Amino acid sequence: MAPGSALSPPQVPMELHLKNRHKLLDSLRQHLSLSSRPLHGFVLLQGGEEQTRHDTDHLELFRQESYFAYLFGVKEPGFYAAIDVANGESILFPPRLPDEYAVWLGEIKPLPYFKEHYMVNTAYFADEIASVLQQRYQGSGAPLLFLLHGLNTDSNNFAKPAEFQGIDKFDKDLTTLHPILTECRVIKTDLEISLIQYANNISSEAHVEVMRKAKVGMKEYQLESMFLHHTYMYGGCRHCSYTCICATGDNSSVLHYGHAAAPNDKTLEDGDIALLDMGAEYHFYGSDITCSFPINGKFTSDQSLIYNAVLDAHNAVLSAMKPGVGWVDMHILAEKVILESLKKGQILVGDVNDMLSARLGALFMPHGLGHLLGIDTHDPGGYLKGPERRKEPGLKSLRTARELQEGMVITVEPGCYFINALLLPAMNSPETSKFFNQQVIKKFNGFGGVRIESDVLVTAAGCYNMTKCPRTTQEIEAVMAGAPWDISS
Amino acid sequence: MAPGSALSPPQVPMELHLKNRHKLLDSLRQHLSLSSRPLHGFVLLQGGEEQTRHDTDHLELFRQESYFAYLFGVKEPGFYAAIDVANGESILFPPRLPDEYAVWLGEIKPLPYFKEHYMVNTAYFADEIASVLQQRYQGSGAPLLFLLHGLNTDSNNFAKPAEFQGIDKFDKDLTTLHPILTECRVIKTDLEISLIQYANNISSEAHVEVMRKAKVGMKEYQLESMFLHHTYMYGGCRHCSYTCICATGDNSSVLHYGHAAAPNDKTLEDGDIALLDMGAEYHFYGSDITCSFPINGKFTSDQSLIYNAVLDAHNAVLSAMKPGVGWVDMHILAEKVILESLKKGQILVGDVNDMLSARLGALFMPHGLGHLLGIDTHDPGGYLKGPERRKEPGLKSLRTARELQEGMVITVEPGCYFINALLLPAMNSPETSKFFNQQVIKKFNGFGGVRIESDVLVTAAGCYNMTKCPRTTQEIEAVMAGAPWDISS
Repeated sequence: MAPGSALSPPQVPMELHLKNRHKLLDSLRQHLSLSSRPLHGFVLLQGGEEQTRHDTDHLELFRQESYFAYLFGVKEPGFYAAIDVANGESILFPPRLPDEYAVWLGEIKPLPYFKEHYMVNTAYFADEIASVLQQRYQGSGAPLLFLLHGLNTDSNNFAKPAEFQGIDKFDKDLTTLHPILTECRVIKTDLEISLIQYANNISSEAHVEVMRKAKVGMKEYQLESMFLHHTYMYGGCRHCSYTCICATGDNSSVLHYGHAAAPNDKTLEDGDIALLDMGAEYHFYGSDITCSFPINGKFTSDQSLIYNAVLDAHNAVLSAMKPGVGWVDMHILAEKVILESLKKGQILVGDVNDMLSARLGALFMPHGLGHLLGIDTHDPGGYLKGPERRKEPGLKSLRTARELQEGMVITVEPGCYFINALLLPAMNSPETSKFFNQQVIKKFNGFGGVRIESDVLVTAAGCYNMTKCPRTTQEIEAVMAGAPWDISS
Repeated sequence: MAPGSALSPPQVPMELHLKNRHKLLDSLRQHLSLSSRPLHGFVLLQGGEEQTRHDTDHLELFRQESYFAYLFGVKEPGFYAAIDVANGESILFPPRLPDEYAVWLGEIKPLPYFKEHYMVNTAYFADEIASVLQQRYQGSGAPLLFLLHGLNTDSNNFAKPAEFQGIDKFDKDLTTLHPILTECRVIKTDLEISLIQYANNISSEAHVEVMRKAKVGMKEYQLESMFLHHTYMYGGCRHCSYTCICATGDNSSVLHYGHAAAPNDKTLEDGDIALLDMGAEYHFYGSDITCSFPINGKFTSDQSLIYNAVLDAHNAVLSAMKPGVGWVDMHILAEKVILESLKKGQILVGDVNDMLSARLGALFMPHGLGHLLGIDTHDPGGYLKGPERRKEPGLKSLRTARELQEGMVITVEPGCYFINALLLPAMNSPETSKFFNQQVIKKFNGFGGVRIESDVLVTAAGCYNMTKCPRTTQEIEAVMAGAPWDISS
């Protein structure tokens, strides 16, 4: 245990990926049997390659492609890997490294090292794929490859199927693997959950650290730096799940603030609200956590009003979550709680159901309530099964419309923002102007926004909040004033 | 001034890039005049785009393409920019952003903002390039574009010329711009030098901080985390020039340790030497600094022997550097000083000139003595002018063989490593075995290596060391024991 933290990086059992492979194999075999197809062929995946920046030799720090990471846990670039559907054996294909590698980049590990370390059945060099798979194939005709090809519904990009010298001698199935493997990733195993829990623990602790050290006069990026340092120094997390969003004051109404064109560079001012959306990744598995708090350590009554509107929505959703519940309904529940609070706070007037029908919720929370979380921050599978994407404002931003299932990990991240680009047109529109108390809402011009985001595991009976941050205004004010905070509580 | 640092991030004058553009324009016009070509056409560059990771919507933090950064200083992705050769005017072409951008990513800045902020003459949207340039063109026939296309001699990749809708209506010159623009980057202006100096100052301070806090039992990555934190928290450096190399013990003989397959994950042990190669980047301009020191704070006599061999080489090179001196000669000088020290230390026996001829230096220092430094860590232009790349071991690794010129910034980074993959064959070879004192060199098996790297500006009279780290064994031991260190000294 390091002095700056109650945590230390856990050992990662490679059984995690072995179990992921078994899960895929079971699903795939079941699918093939149901379609009366023979149980042979190879699942073949190509891992990621190191990327240079433009024409230079500047190498970005490599992070494995997510499907490959899920099945094999390999941290090194340039690998291929296969699973033999006939006998369930796994085969790793590391790249054959040149002798100079030992001088410039480190020890050239022998094939048995990879076999043992990654708990696969055997290992060959990547340039042997074609011959090895042809030799192992038991069926008749050209051996069959199940390759990864399918739509990512968050990016609208397609997974790229493996390519290698000699692939023309194989039959290719480009449709079967992607939906089955993606569905495996949707429901987490206990070993996966424990890594996501660790990422949540160290990130929660880091959020508390940042809350305590944030002071008027600092720069937003200093909050980012403290978070990154805490999670790497004490947590062993070299990667974050996403670029840190460290938004203060009016910036907190910019949903994805923090990128290169809006690079966390404002000075923290007295009276600012901070919205910090930051999550560390550990052995590929991520966290995604947002805390909102007043920079000066004391909520104003306006800040309390908006903060509690969002917290009540967050808590209402957690109380309602359980297997079988639809995610769109959870989004609408969050909207409703927020609109009710805004009405109580005299920002809005009229009937809340009328507001919901007029999609007023989407003005204050234009993003979806939450998304699947795992090896990707926006983990895939959101629209693989169940209802299609909705068309209405707010609802169309949902990254899934599925029913909850035990073993899903999903973020719950309601927010309430004062975004002129959305509010001003609505305040002036004949259909919606009646809902606004123009005198009161004026006060919130420049307020920014509040988001509260937790990572939630769906359990058999309900759900479990994996995120361990101070959440009530009392807890936040106490922690910022120096009170202890136990992330295991 | 923050309590943790004597420095604070300086304002960056956009005149820097204006001067860079003037420099290019002067060179290009001179070249065109000498070739009796008309002084019209447009230099057109395409900036970098944000990249997603594989098929996901995970965005890597954007960092501008280096040539584009050099001429325009633009931090945002998706831009084009042109310089009108006829009148010298600069035109920025930002992307036309959709309305939703304001909700998700922040304020949509108007064209005049970019014109003013980046000190260009005018700005249009990127989808207007073809029409704007055709309208402005004064010459006859199709307007001419000078596009960037040429070899990067470090990566062997080619710069990618700009592409846009309507480019087929232009004449394209793919050969003129690259060598001229690259040569502009080789010689730094005062404004560029001051940014490289700042990156050196904050990185030097961070190296001292890490040296002080490194302790037996820590992990290598904790040293990386402390460096990153210091340079970002106090220095405002969001990017590093390259992935941190935090090598201890035998890892310090792996020249480019620290990447994903060798991720700074060893525990620091008593008796280990540390080799930390880490440099921050500020507004695109980088630093590249290596410090070597004993983890326990006290050099052993073996460590002193190797360390001082390298330090003597470093100092000998700095004493000899001045305009007109050849870089290959500097490399050989460093080799010679190191071999002489190894002979004095009874690791090697025989005549040092014979050792040099047998390329023994390349066994202990397989990399080049140093490289141009600027917006890229391996700044381009190393083989644009002057002698070609040498073929001999060691010398072939040199990233330049040019003569030094006033205004060049180049790293001086001699090293001495005990790399079994290189030494064992040489110790057993009939040509070279005679040079080794087999009894003594055995002791250094597992020693690792030492590198000392400074960023050096070539001046009219000699050179100036921009790096401000403790360098003598006495200075290092004193700093590690808590003595103050003034980076302005």
